Amino acid sequence: LLVKKVKAEGLAHLSYLVGGTRQAAVIDPRRDCQTYLDIADRAGLRITNILETHRNEDYVTGSRELESLTGAEVLHGDLDFDYGKRIEEGEEVDLGETVLRALATPGHTPESMSYVLYDRSAGPQAVGVFTGDALFVGEVGRTDLLGKEVKRDLASQLYDSLHIKLIPLGPGTIIYPAHGAGSACGGSISNREESTIGLEMEQNKALRIRSKEEFVEMKMNELMEKPFYFEKMEDLNLHGQPVLGRLPHPEGMLAKEFQERAERGATVLDVRSPTSFAGGHVPGSISIPKEVLPNYAGWVLEYGRDILLVTDGPDDVEDIVRILVRIGYDTVAGHLVESVEGWAKAGYKVQGFPLVTPRELYHSLSEGENLTVMDVRTRREWVEERVDGSMYIFAGYLKGNVDEVPRDRPVAVLCSSGLRGSLGASILQNQGYEVLNVLGGTGAWKRSGLPMVK
Amino acid sequence: LLVKKVKAEGLAHLSYLVGGTRQAAVIDPRRDCQTYLDIADRAGLRITNILETHRNEDYVTGSRELESLTGAEVLHGDLDFDYGKRIEEGEEVDLGETVLRALATPGHTPESMSYVLYDRSAGPQAVGVFTGDALFVGEVGRTDLLGKEVKRDLASQLYDSLHIKLIPLGPGTIIYPAHGAGSACGGSISNREESTIGLEMEQNKALRIRSKEEFVEMKMNELMEKPFYFEKMEDLNLHGQPVLGRLPHPEGMLAKEFQERAERGATVLDVRSPTSFAGGHVPGSISIPKEVLPNYAGWVLEYGRDILLVTDGPDDVEDIVRILVRIGYDTVAGHLVESVEGWAKAGYKVQGFPLVTPRELYHSLSEGENLTVMDVRTRREWVEERVDGSMYIFAGYLKGNVDEVPRDRPVAVLCSSGLRGSLGASILQNQGYEVLNVLGGTGAWKRSGLPMVK
Amino acid sequence: LLVKKVKAEGLAHLSYLVGGTRQAAVIDPRRDCQTYLDIADRAGLRITNILETHRNEDYVTGSRELESLTGAEVLHGDLDFDYGKRIEEGEEVDLGETVLRALATPGHTPESMSYVLYDRSAGPQAVGVFTGDALFVGEVGRTDLLGKEVKRDLASQLYDSLHIKLIPLGPGTIIYPAHGAGSACGGSISNREESTIGLEMEQNKALRIRSKEEFVEMKMNELMEKPFYFEKMEDLNLHGQPVLGRLPHPEGMLAKEFQERAERGATVLDVRSPTSFAGGHVPGSISIPKEVLPNYAGWVLEYGRDILLVTDGPDDVEDIVRILVRIGYDTVAGHLVESVEGWAKAGYKVQGFPLVTPRELYHSLSEGENLTVMDVRTRREWVEERVDGSMYIFAGYLKGNVDEVPRDRPVAVLCSSGLRGSLGASILQNQGYEVLNVLGGTGAWKRSGLPMVK
Amino acid sequence: LLVKKVKAEGLAHLSYLVGGTRQAAVIDPRRDCQTYLDIADRAGLRITNILETHRNEDYVTGSRELESLTGAEVLHGDLDFDYGKRIEEGEEVDLGETVLRALATPGHTPESMSYVLYDRSAGPQAVGVFTGDALFVGEVGRTDLLGKEVKRDLASQLYDSLHIKLIPLGPGTIIYPAHGAGSACGGSISNREESTIGLEMEQNKALRIRSKEEFVEMKMNELMEKPFYFEKMEDLNLHGQPVLGRLPHPEGMLAKEFQERAERGATVLDVRSPTSFAGGHVPGSISIPKEVLPNYAGWVLEYGRDILLVTDGPDDVEDIVRILVRIGYDTVAGHLVESVEGWAKAGYKVQGFPLVTPRELYHSLSEGENLTVMDVRTRREWVEERVDGSMYIFAGYLKGNVDEVPRDRPVAVLCSSGLRGSLGASILQNQGYEVLNVLGGTGAWKRSGLPMVK
Repeated sequence: LLVKKVKAEGLAHLSYLVGGTRQAAVIDPRRDCQTYLDIADRAGLRITNILETHRNEDYVTGSRELESLTGAEVLHGDLDFDYGKRIEEGEEVDLGETVLRALATPGHTPESMSYVLYDRSAGPQAVGVFTGDALFVGEVGRTDLLGKEVKRDLASQLYDSLHIKLIPLGPGTIIYPAHGAGSACGGSISNREESTIGLEMEQNKALRIRSKEEFVEMKMNELMEKPFYFEKMEDLNLHGQPVLGRLPHPEGMLAKEFQERAERGATVLDVRSPTSFAGGHVPGSISIPKEVLPNYAGWVLEYGRDILLVTDGPDDVEDIVRILVRIGYDTVAGHLVESVEGWAKAGYKVQGFPLVTPRELYHSLSEGENLTVMDVRTRREWVEERVDGSMYIFAGYLKGNVDEVPRDRPVAVLCSSGLRGSLGASILQNQGYEVLNVLGGTGAWKRSGLPMVK
Repeated sequence: LLVKKVKAEGLAHLSYLVGGTRQAAVIDPRRDCQTYLDIADRAGLRITNILETHRNEDYVTGSRELESLTGAEVLHGDLDFDYGKRIEEGEEVDLGETVLRALATPGHTPESMSYVLYDRSAGPQAVGVFTGDALFVGEVGRTDLLGKEVKRDLASQLYDSLHIKLIPLGPGTIIYPAHGAGSACGGSISNREESTIGLEMEQNKALRIRSKEEFVEMKMNELMEKPFYFEKMEDLNLHGQPVLGRLPHPEGMLAKEFQERAERGATVLDVRSPTSFAGGHVPGSISIPKEVLPNYAGWVLEYGRDILLVTDGPDDVEDIVRILVRIGYDTVAGHLVESVEGWAKAGYKVQGFPLVTPRELYHSLSEGENLTVMDVRTRREWVEERVDGSMYIFAGYLKGNVDEVPRDRPVAVLCSSGLRGSLGASILQNQGYEVLNVLGGTGAWKRSGLPMVK
Repeated sequence: LLVKKVKAEGLAHLSYLVGGTRQAAVIDPRRDCQTYLDIADRAGLRITNILETHRNEDYVTGSRELESLTGAEVLHGDLDFDYGKRIEEGEEVDLGETVLRALATPGHTPESMSYVLYDRSAGPQAVGVFTGDALFVGEVGRTDLLGKEVKRDLASQLYDSLHIKLIPLGPGTIIYPAHGAGSACGGSISNREESTIGLEMEQNKALRIRSKEEFVEMKMNELMEKPFYFEKMEDLNLHGQPVLGRLPHPEGMLAKEFQERAERGATVLDVRSPTSFAGGHVPGSISIPKEVLPNYAGWVLEYGRDILLVTDGPDDVEDIVRILVRIGYDTVAGHLVESVEGWAKAGYKVQGFPLVTPRELYHSLSEGENLTVMDVRTRREWVEERVDGSMYIFAGYLKGNVDEVPRDRPVAVLCSSGLRGSLGASILQNQGYEVLNVLGGTGAWKRSGLPMVK
Repeated sequence: LLVKKVKAEGLAHLSYLVGGTRQAAVIDPRRDCQTYLDIADRAGLRITNILETHRNEDYVTGSRELESLTGAEVLHGDLDFDYGKRIEEGEEVDLGETVLRALATPGHTPESMSYVLYDRSAGPQAVGVFTGDALFVGEVGRTDLLGKEVKRDLASQLYDSLHIKLIPLGPGTIIYPAHGAGSACGGSISNREESTIGLEMEQNKALRIRSKEEFVEMKMNELMEKPFYFEKMEDLNLHGQPVLGRLPHPEGMLAKEFQERAERGATVLDVRSPTSFAGGHVPGSISIPKEVLPNYAGWVLEYGRDILLVTDGPDDVEDIVRILVRIGYDTVAGHLVESVEGWAKAGYKVQGFPLVTPRELYHSLSEGENLTVMDVRTRREWVEERVDGSMYIFAGYLKGNVDEVPRDRPVAVLCSSGLRGSLGASILQNQGYEVLNVLGGTGAWKRSGLPMVK
């Protein structure tokens, strides 16, 4: 019995290859799925089953891709998918001594399915359970993604799934969730990746709420953004993802060609660090530093348009392509093979903006300088504490709400570190604003001992 | 909180890197320890502590090697080690939100220490426990290695460690043992690598024995070989292992040089498959196919002598060197850069012996052919079932007991697959016997429907 | 100006990526062509041209594969290809300061084209020349592949190409040929891979023949086999190779499945060493040790049939698939994931045959043992010297000429090392012969001081 | 016969492994020399000789390092080295069919030795020649490094070496020089890496000067900087380099520890791009973007002091360590494991400076803004053309000549691209100047159509 976890960083998406004596199943594969074949080959296993815990909203699943490479059968919970086959609660996938049994755990979505892992050579106990987005380490799944109408109902279903389906598996059962810390699919998932039913019963706040009413109320009050691209993901995952065959291979472009393609309407995406972007960038480009790319691309990049990359070098390109492909952006057409320095040397225009530290910003504000402080963090972060007098628009909503930002003075964009600040500043700069990015964000603000309001 | 398992195949030795916010500890490092540095670097962690669960008998620990590379502090249980520092039960290693607390669990050895893992950000519960050789998945530690005098006493201590120390951590606690399936340190460790206290309470036969007397009796009756090299390991691990600095780099040798070095007294070790070895080998060489090398080298190779390798090619050399270094053989001096075919082409003598399938052997025996069937499996396997009329000497003891084998007829060597049979056949051939190796061993014997006695 | 050589071992096929300031051309790409993309990416180049020196007979070119990945234009010499475009002598491909100019050098084939390399930044001299199969280091191209009718004419054309086209480029011009030592496309290509026109004028025997008549006569007398698969290659290269998209991914199979597929008509190909094969193999399998696979597969494997592999392990599979794909075998369906030892252990039949050293064979023959010594080397090797009394059939012709081999006595198969001997022995064993393979072959025969006749 | 070139980027240092039937020699090894062992292993060769063409000034040779790993013999030309052995002109190193013969070619230094390559299997001609720093592709060696006193004499010797020793080897002889384009050891080495004596006779300006007087005069007039660290290199290369055993492994440090070490006197070296550095950096750090690190580190970094790195991420650290070790900086003690963004978030001070494009700068100057334009390019570049009114100090001399720069106005630092400009700006900023870096440098200046004076 083999369980191999495959982690897609950023999305904090966890998929698993489960192997028996000879066959293997993959649970919630990602789209760049050669890695599962490699693991299976090395272990002398053949991938025969692909199990999905639910439709998934935050990434394009690799089920059809992996199916096309292996001929394995795709299995889903109770919903109309345009591909694969339905699996019912109680049905088993037998991999040879290792068995996965479907367990309906609705709540995050109505069709959510968990898969309970049995080790027939050891005994009849549930050894582990692949919980999808029902139960994470330290957190439970969101119930708000399908809209307000069903939110209360889903919260109630989730409570039942947790207490009637999962907890009874026993405290010694290991949990294998679909996401780790940082995912947009759970409020505050722990950065520890291993846990058990027993530990969660003690440590998971949501599980410790014993009353159903209280639980539902807690879920109703959750404040979480739903990224724009989630609907695109659900759509692709229900109706079938395009099969890539191989990763897109963007061309390295020199300044001239890059410029021409950009002028013909491609999006220029700069994934370098906030200091690099502030120092100098291709005019009109959008800044999404690679650390936040998986979680923010889907808020601001248009599907269907060609994407041109500015990276720290050609070695970064494949990683960026992977990240984008996982969330359905298959149109990366090229990357600037010269650095921004080379672009400048070739005589092309370069734009920048100043970085400012919290202390400098605080000083300017104290001196009465006329500045908008624009906080672009999530609502949850904003509600918790903020800089007095700051304006608030979440980074993901900024592009659509630029008009609310006063045009008569510079805007100092603030997030928790400077990463999302760079995104916000690039959006505003492209709309003609004079901008600054607050390097270090609220993190540095607090470390510098400056006051915040709660 | 990060837990990364590092597995040394063959020995089935499991070591762990445990990371907190900034620091990491390594538990029971292996000797080729660059891998821990790589993991730590990638995770932005610094290795500050090296924890040993016990003296270890089946491999040379990498504690001093890793100490020399990182400056980390080595910590041991209650015994006189010539290096490192003692840690007492209850003492904690704080890695930043992640804490390891020492828990004395004597039994396998008197100084055996477990380390309980706490995730301070989640709660006060024991999240996991590094059990060393006290508790494995599906098995408990051996208590016979320190000799008959203390065996009963150790078994009794182990019972207490399991029931008074480990089980009370709670069913939801994850266990991280020092060995997986195939290790010489436990009778029948499960090939599943993940478990919890709760699962072991249900599935582990040794834990399900509730009476201490019964448990001790069971341990007293265990039949297990103690490899010769274990004493060497204990000695090195107590008094300090030589620090290598880098892996030995054996020279590629042509036939002539290889021959000369062999004549000057080096051991020629052939790690190719049983079919390759039977087909043709360097006269005087010993066959230990790489699959069984980690567990059988220590039975038959002399320490201190130069070792010359015959492999399937230069790409295999580094892996073999790693395996040998982990068990204290630092004297690999060269490898035959030409294949055995090249050796033959260079005009050097080649030796072989026939392989025989169980059916052919059974047929010969039925026809009354005068043959010794020499079973070289472990006593446990032998006791379970065997070919009627076969002679028994364990492969590890064969070299020292050749005189017992009749010289007047061919010897068909039998193990469970042909791997250890190749070792046995090579030992006997070097002593002048006419030999055959039974390809497929008792495995094929049974699959072919031939009779065995119990 | 960048010239990167890519070598396909075994076929000793040399292809080249030539880069200018921004663009690159690939000359004679192999079919597994990701490597050219990787080189170009790293160097910031875009592949815009694919140049073929001639139709190629010994491998499937990767032109269409690379075209499909890059959109680069395929250019050929003067012949009706079903894809790509014709390039005429004197036409230039300008890569930016680096220029390739077509130079017709017929002889090996009528359409053979060389490409002369110019470094515009340095001067007007020819810096190098990609000679295809016209001129190698130490050898010139074969002129016999298109049949007896045109052989004399082609030899005459080749003489002119060498003396009127290539030599005038000047002694300082570097040559970049399409093959290195070991290729079936040249009699005795040097194992040195670098040379110049000046060096070849001094060191290349064929170039030192100054009289055209003498040269043509020499070429008419050459003794070289033409592998059966060459016609398939020419056909694919003229009419367009299937585009793979990605390398085939053969399934790992357990003994049972492997056996079933073999019974349904798949070819079982064993690429392990002669000692491994002799020691034990799957009955009915054909032995082509991986060292000789590129040059011998095309003699004996049927196109269109599924191929099942027996290798030294799963790590070898990809390399074998690459070798086979390069010569048009796209039907590798699986590999035995268990070793032959595992196959035996699963109760399946194993076959072997004895290996014999030259001394033992010589001794047997001297004793009057009734044995056929079957020499399977190339005619050129055979003509040079041989074992007295041996029978001769080239390994590539053996399958079709088995009837000539006496069935009433064992056959000792002899090559120069044992590699092709293993192939020959497997063919004969599959036809019911009792066989032995002479380990070390004529190489060992001579080293052992045994007599040969010339 | 095998010739494998190993290139150390940046220094453009070319070393070679030359293999015969069984042995190999390495010519001018670099200090991180595992790569030679890997090449030799794969080719089944043993490294038996290490040949130095001369003392070398621009890097620490790896001779003693490689000697310590292989036991190979180090051979030098005619000078008092504290290790290795002298080789005289005409002496041969026989690697089995492949022979290297020493040929004294003084000029660059008095002891400079070339090694002529013979392929005994092909004929008596010189196949190639390892020319060290005597002859490059398109250039010849510097003769100014040993001082003015001997410059004329060395130039005269070099003329003789070229015309009496190297040219007579014949036009077809391949040349293998010790440096490629970008090296500080030759004025304008071609970026083509392959050439022959014949090509150089036509294309190399220095070789085309047929009169000795003219040649010497040309060499006397050469304008080239001698990096400060060259003397350190010569000293280490004459008296023996420290043997490292393994590459230094700098600790990943968090902001706090990094800060403390910097305060205790370590040099903070930032190797990120000019845009990143300008955007934000650790106060007091020196900027040497990695592209120019090999050539500029030795001008400005003190030997003996600890070095702390700021990189684009942990993956870059090993490469930077390699670059520094090759020029004798063995004291890299740590790297900032957090990015500069993390440093800011931790509340530490960040500094930046504006980048300016040539057009903006030109505009400001036209408007009469009070700015020093400080050109930091090499004298050769400066002499060729420059911005009118600019001040000139070469980047390597800036630190020692800061006093010449007016303190009463901002300084716009200008190089050809912005890379060395970043270095210059960081030096001046650390001395209290208000600075700007001209992004794109004179390259962008010209592309923007702005005027320069010659």
